Amino acid sequence: MTTGKRKAKATQEALHRIFTIPEAPESTLGLIEKEISENLAGFLGNHIVATEKPLTEIEQDFASSQIPEEPEFVSDHMHHLLDKLISQSVHTSSPSFIGHMTSALPYFILPLSKLMVGLNQNLVKIETSKAFTPLERQVLGMIHRLVYRDDEDFYQRWMHSANHSLGAFCSGGTVANLTALWVARNNLLRPDGEFKGIAREGLFKALKHYDCDGLAILVSERGHYSLKKSADVLGIGQESVIAIPTDENNRIDCQLLREKCRELTANRIKILSIVGVAGTTETGNIDPLNEMADIAGEYGCHFHVDAAWGGATLLSEKYRHLLDGIERADSVTIDAHKQMYVPMGAGLVVFKNPSSVTAIEHHAEYILRKGSKDLGSHTLEGSRPGMAMLVYASLHIISRPGYEMLINQGIEKAAYFAGIIKQHPEFELISEPELCLLTYRYVPKGIQELLANASDEQQQEINGLLAKLTKFIQKRQRENGKSFVSRTRIEVSRYGGEKILVFRVVLANPLTSEAILHDVLQEQIELAQESENFLPQLQAML
Amino acid sequence: MTTGKRKAKATQEALHRIFTIPEAPESTLGLIEKEISENLAGFLGNHIVATEKPLTEIEQDFASSQIPEEPEFVSDHMHHLLDKLISQSVHTSSPSFIGHMTSALPYFILPLSKLMVGLNQNLVKIETSKAFTPLERQVLGMIHRLVYRDDEDFYQRWMHSANHSLGAFCSGGTVANLTALWVARNNLLRPDGEFKGIAREGLFKALKHYDCDGLAILVSERGHYSLKKSADVLGIGQESVIAIPTDENNRIDCQLLREKCRELTANRIKILSIVGVAGTTETGNIDPLNEMADIAGEYGCHFHVDAAWGGATLLSEKYRHLLDGIERADSVTIDAHKQMYVPMGAGLVVFKNPSSVTAIEHHAEYILRKGSKDLGSHTLEGSRPGMAMLVYASLHIISRPGYEMLINQGIEKAAYFAGIIKQHPEFELISEPELCLLTYRYVPKGIQELLANASDEQQQEINGLLAKLTKFIQKRQRENGKSFVSRTRIEVSRYGGEKILVFRVVLANPLTSEAILHDVLQEQIELAQESENFLPQLQAML
Repeated sequence: MTTGKRKAKATQEALHRIFTIPEAPESTLGLIEKEISENLAGFLGNHIVATEKPLTEIEQDFASSQIPEEPEFVSDHMHHLLDKLISQSVHTSSPSFIGHMTSALPYFILPLSKLMVGLNQNLVKIETSKAFTPLERQVLGMIHRLVYRDDEDFYQRWMHSANHSLGAFCSGGTVANLTALWVARNNLLRPDGEFKGIAREGLFKALKHYDCDGLAILVSERGHYSLKKSADVLGIGQESVIAIPTDENNRIDCQLLREKCRELTANRIKILSIVGVAGTTETGNIDPLNEMADIAGEYGCHFHVDAAWGGATLLSEKYRHLLDGIERADSVTIDAHKQMYVPMGAGLVVFKNPSSVTAIEHHAEYILRKGSKDLGSHTLEGSRPGMAMLVYASLHIISRPGYEMLINQGIEKAAYFAGIIKQHPEFELISEPELCLLTYRYVPKGIQELLANASDEQQQEINGLLAKLTKFIQKRQRENGKSFVSRTRIEVSRYGGEKILVFRVVLANPLTSEAILHDVLQEQIELAQESENFLPQLQAML
Repeated sequence: MTTGKRKAKATQEALHRIFTIPEAPESTLGLIEKEISENLAGFLGNHIVATEKPLTEIEQDFASSQIPEEPEFVSDHMHHLLDKLISQSVHTSSPSFIGHMTSALPYFILPLSKLMVGLNQNLVKIETSKAFTPLERQVLGMIHRLVYRDDEDFYQRWMHSANHSLGAFCSGGTVANLTALWVARNNLLRPDGEFKGIAREGLFKALKHYDCDGLAILVSERGHYSLKKSADVLGIGQESVIAIPTDENNRIDCQLLREKCRELTANRIKILSIVGVAGTTETGNIDPLNEMADIAGEYGCHFHVDAAWGGATLLSEKYRHLLDGIERADSVTIDAHKQMYVPMGAGLVVFKNPSSVTAIEHHAEYILRKGSKDLGSHTLEGSRPGMAMLVYASLHIISRPGYEMLINQGIEKAAYFAGIIKQHPEFELISEPELCLLTYRYVPKGIQELLANASDEQQQEINGLLAKLTKFIQKRQRENGKSFVSRTRIEVSRYGGEKILVFRVVLANPLTSEAILHDVLQEQIELAQESENFLPQLQAML
């Protein structure tokens, strides 16, 4: 045999092996899997290197744009991944990583995900998903009922109806929000007489037909950036997303909202949607949804609630009242991969009216034929995995009271953390937690008093230095790898609406203990001392 | 303790268990996992019931819209899933299920997926993905190089550049196509003088500023339905997607394309994009990409290639010439979850120009800050899982020559299958395979000759009956559960462009043998005999 032929034969054999022979339990991948299965936290703790490596160094390990010309043994490749990738990944499930919305997952999710991948269903059509289609429809029904609480008859009638859909399952909150606004846009500029509707004729002709100069989406200044992105995608333009100021609790000012609606309408701008936020990404606050629903009613416009993060609070009988009015929304976004403890890639949008989605209905010859129950005719995405199974299983295994405990614990832990921050002489609570998210910052002793009595100019100077200190601490803490809080900038009314740099924590991980919270603060105090510039400058002001 | 308290305690304990204690190897889920790990095909064969249950019956198992009020044991729930869901799912990896684009997966993908879920990274930002971000950028670079073959300097310069991106990773081909057209639209209607660009001001003002009456996307009549969906989402309208007729090989007629471009331009319609298809979903043919690139060049418009399915052919040195001209496209869609043997949920779009994506750039305060390398600033989706790791591992473990073998085998198997269909007296090949996809139908002995000499009217009558017979056979075959081909309707030039119902097969599964192909035909012949209406009616015509 020539070298070429020998190589070809080896590749052929390797191929046959990887498609037909499972990894042996004693292989590298087999052993990794065993370790993950038996003790995920231990595995991650062992393999993720604590101290941060600079990104530019990591990039050197991922610098080749050539697709390899020789097959690699699975074991060799696994060593490579452990060494270069896993070691430098983020321990998102660690109880001391409280800076993001990604939490620990229940154990059963791991083998169940493997089952999902092994089944490799495609939810776009029944031909490649069969029972997964009714399952997904049921999950949509459950979330719809959680939000809208319609009666049994309603769900018996619509949940499995071919030409209706109670919502859409998608990869995440951004696509969910986009889908909701797409539906709202197409229903607003619907077919009318000669006009065949925006879906067919486009926005330019639609606005001409309806004789108006533009569209607007109204949301508080705390609205998620995906709304602007959606406005861009939908052809409405980011400037059509009008940010309404918030009150001191980061909730939309309904007085200003109403005024803006009046002004826009007078200026021949149609209101496409008012968007309420139920759990802002940056402060965790909830808009006054009932009052917003009233205003949407007055102007006859779509009312969407972005509850991507906070929506799971509806599972708590004790706290669901915080979202009162959500049942009046025309559409609601909820991410299962946030507070429902499902892995990344599970967003949902539900619609009050099961017919709403006909505004975005699509058909093709080989799938999604008219009258079919293929889910793909009412989703933005085409091919999609069977993630709904993970939500379904979680709802059954954890159950509503289980979720209630998780939600309540998070909220109460945040209240506890807020309490210790407020009492602490070296920290300032910036936003009171309504759910399990809060913001705060480190302020050296004495500086808080100074701030309270300072002139506007002095305040700005101090806040500028504090911003640098906060950034320094946040970065250093992340690099040390023991714990992680995130940072953002928000307008704070007690500083005249100035944008303040703050730490942001999300307390959704059930394994985060009170002791950990104390440790996080202690570490921040210690890190502040390491700042050779900002801390001394601040102290010099005293 | 009261019952309420006892229940609460039990729930609390259950919660603690599922977050901290792994499934025992001898638990139901543990045993299922073992079975999947050791013999996936066996597991699926054992648990998926062969004979189809009517969908309405399956729906009765997924009828409750109530979220359970009591937690279920993982084991009990797994029995439920096995019994109601898995048993009624689709055996997408079976070598005799040749009707869809979902194939068998290499074994290493299963444990690797579990690792991915356990790591639960979020690729939207480095803070929750770290090394996964450079890894995803590398995968984008590899696919970019596969398409465009730029030199090493190009990739060293752009692959990890914060303000550039060689493409976007997303959940699938639909989002990839949408992203490409979004980029094209925003670059076409870019900021200009006082006008701040469509991203900010929207389509209505953009068309006014650029003084034109509309936009158009030109694609062959075989273009994927996601293009119309994208046009709807982007506010352009489905009618702006102009279907150009194809030649007898299902390739776009470039003469007609050029004429249409001329006509539209004369009518003040701007051409947003010409879209080439590299592997149509229904017939697997490839448009003349070089000629299309010429036309796009003449009209100065964006040239996108939808190679969602066929793009993997570039991995074959032997057959990549079929896609010649793709390197001239401004953007290219490739789905890794189709012919790259990665599970559902991995789409990619690459852009020739690393600066293209600035047209869709987004920022926020808490992530995607300017200058950061967060991938989320250039993707349609927000939070996304670490699917890129599966593509990365597959490219390394299978390697380019391994992929080449898989691709070549598929193409050659389709040629073989086409050969036996053509020689067979009872089958008619409808579309010649160019890649591994072909269409055909069952035509009883003697009817083919009759058709060839029939008048137009007679032809229509016969084709009408054949359509019913084809549908009957396809449905019955699917219900029997032994094998599966899909069906679609395509215009066939030898029948005067009449729409013909056909069987459609995709031969990407490396485990599909020639014997299986013979069996599929044999089963179809037998099923035809079971048709009590259509076959006798056809035979009566002889």
